Amino acid sequence: MVLVGDRGEFDLIKLLTDGLSYTPQTIVGVGDDCAVYEISKGKYLLATCDMLIEDVHFTRKTASAFLIGCKAIACSLSDIAAMGGHPLFALISLGLPETTPEEFATDLYVGIRSMCRDHQVALIGGDTVRSPDKVVIDVSMLGDCPKGKFILRSGAKSGDAIVVTGYLGDSAAGLDLLNKKVSESDSERRSELVQAHLAPEPRCQPGIFLAENFDVHAMIDVSDGLAGDLGHICEQSKLGARIHADKIPVSDTLKEFCRAARLDPLAYAVTGGEDYELLFTLSPKELACLKSEWPEEFELPLTHIGEMDKAIKGINIVSPDGREQPLQVRSYEHFKKR
Amino acid sequence: MVLVGDRGEFDLIKLLTDGLSYTPQTIVGVGDDCAVYEISKGKYLLATCDMLIEDVHFTRKTASAFLIGCKAIACSLSDIAAMGGHPLFALISLGLPETTPEEFATDLYVGIRSMCRDHQVALIGGDTVRSPDKVVIDVSMLGDCPKGKFILRSGAKSGDAIVVTGYLGDSAAGLDLLNKKVSESDSERRSELVQAHLAPEPRCQPGIFLAENFDVHAMIDVSDGLAGDLGHICEQSKLGARIHADKIPVSDTLKEFCRAARLDPLAYAVTGGEDYELLFTLSPKELACLKSEWPEEFELPLTHIGEMDKAIKGINIVSPDGREQPLQVRSYEHFKKR
Repeated sequence: MVLVGDRGEFDLIKLLTDGLSYTPQTIVGVGDDCAVYEISKGKYLLATCDMLIEDVHFTRKTASAFLIGCKAIACSLSDIAAMGGHPLFALISLGLPETTPEEFATDLYVGIRSMCRDHQVALIGGDTVRSPDKVVIDVSMLGDCPKGKFILRSGAKSGDAIVVTGYLGDSAAGLDLLNKKVSESDSERRSELVQAHLAPEPRCQPGIFLAENFDVHAMIDVSDGLAGDLGHICEQSKLGARIHADKIPVSDTLKEFCRAARLDPLAYAVTGGEDYELLFTLSPKELACLKSEWPEEFELPLTHIGEMDKAIKGINIVSPDGREQPLQVRSYEHFKKR
Repeated sequence: MVLVGDRGEFDLIKLLTDGLSYTPQTIVGVGDDCAVYEISKGKYLLATCDMLIEDVHFTRKTASAFLIGCKAIACSLSDIAAMGGHPLFALISLGLPETTPEEFATDLYVGIRSMCRDHQVALIGGDTVRSPDKVVIDVSMLGDCPKGKFILRSGAKSGDAIVVTGYLGDSAAGLDLLNKKVSESDSERRSELVQAHLAPEPRCQPGIFLAENFDVHAMIDVSDGLAGDLGHICEQSKLGARIHADKIPVSDTLKEFCRAARLDPLAYAVTGGEDYELLFTLSPKELACLKSEWPEEFELPLTHIGEMDKAIKGINIVSPDGREQPLQVRSYEHFKKR
């Protein structure tokens, strides 16, 4: 008997959704950050859902209820941002064991409601049910596209610059610290990395800014790690990519932590997930304009890390000494045995 | 420490969602079958979500994966039907233990997909994640309202006729049979009742027909049982109701089963849940028109069971001998200790 644990997440999704028959209104179905539905002529709805289960996606041992609630909303906001869309409203299904302290439920909702308020998302409905032993949170979020434009993973062109917002790898290092796989004696550094994991900031305004003002060809949010998510752009755009190791943005905090712990920051930055930064491609000329117009108030670095190249299969990485070699793509997949 | 199990489901929802600040586009928030969002001038979206958790809402011991998938979609379709809306598209989040046979997942999706196909619902996206030990299914469904009309629970008027489609109580009896609380030696009867529980038929076309052609004042689907759901209409319409015991529609199958098992069919019909029939109110005059125009092809009885009455507090039930007394309202509530 084949078990679902014998397959990787992406294989399983393919098996379950292969050959789905969509209606003509379904512009984009399963396989991007959001689905796209044409609700009336030229008006597109973005739709995404994310399920978080206790002891798989979070644990009450290391995360406060407030932050779990915030992050549940942040994941969905990030999916909408990665299409260049505006979030509109959300539905929350919540499964709670009977033994959950009521304070956990109310604090969770304080987080959910505060994140919704900050991003002007209307929390319009939901379902609250009993769960035998784990807290389960499912967020569905609907959004729309300013000027009817949305950015897919599949539109990258050969020669495009590959650009990422913010820094990569902090979240994965924070998770390792929470799981006590590594340690950090400097409490400020520890707290910054842990914060990156527990309280990621979805890039809503930057996503809208990019969609409204620039000809961005492909975009995704970095939830599965740079290698995995750039891999999705490559696959869906049917192109390869080259990235430059010394250009991958790593925060000073991650560098210092890795120096002390004798770890490679690049490993965190390339394969770590849940940074929720935006990864996108556009022509070098368009990138030049973007750099000059990127709003300072975003307080968010923009880094050109490589280029799309039809001559490459998969992803190549160029080391500081100029050597170029294929990157072993690895990203977080539910189910996959490691 | 107060635990969530110390409260009823409706208390908990009130605690979590009290004073939610909606956007001006939110026409109906938490508290009806669906939320209503004004997506563009005069165009309303209906939104609902339902979470089903293994060993709370279904068990793999008694239900096939196919039927679990069908029912997950049916619950949401029924919520859209109860607003008089058309379903448009759905998102599915699925949590699966690694040890789930792959066949369970694929059969579940055959059920999900076939129900979506039958009702022209586009399955446009979802999330598939690992779950520690229980299968979790969350369905979010979006719909719209023909001619911009939607029917709430809150619009009933004193003097309105109370009407229900189909028969009540079969599903609850089927559940008792599955749980071996009762037994039935006649295999055909057993199978009909069990089928009513495992494979309920959402009343999509009847719901649309009612909204498009008649001035229905209030509507709800009977998922928490007649007493519970009529109670929701009473509360939200700030009225009482009178129902007549001998008018409550009970199927011949349920009657025969109850006769043999020495059970009261009325108990099933009044407090049992998950029949997914439509319960609605309208003026007696409008009901006369409706009766003459109710399409035969629905093959669905329409029964006038009572009237809304501002002089009553809660629900009164009139027994066959003409005695009228308050009904002890009881419906299924998650969490509530029994």
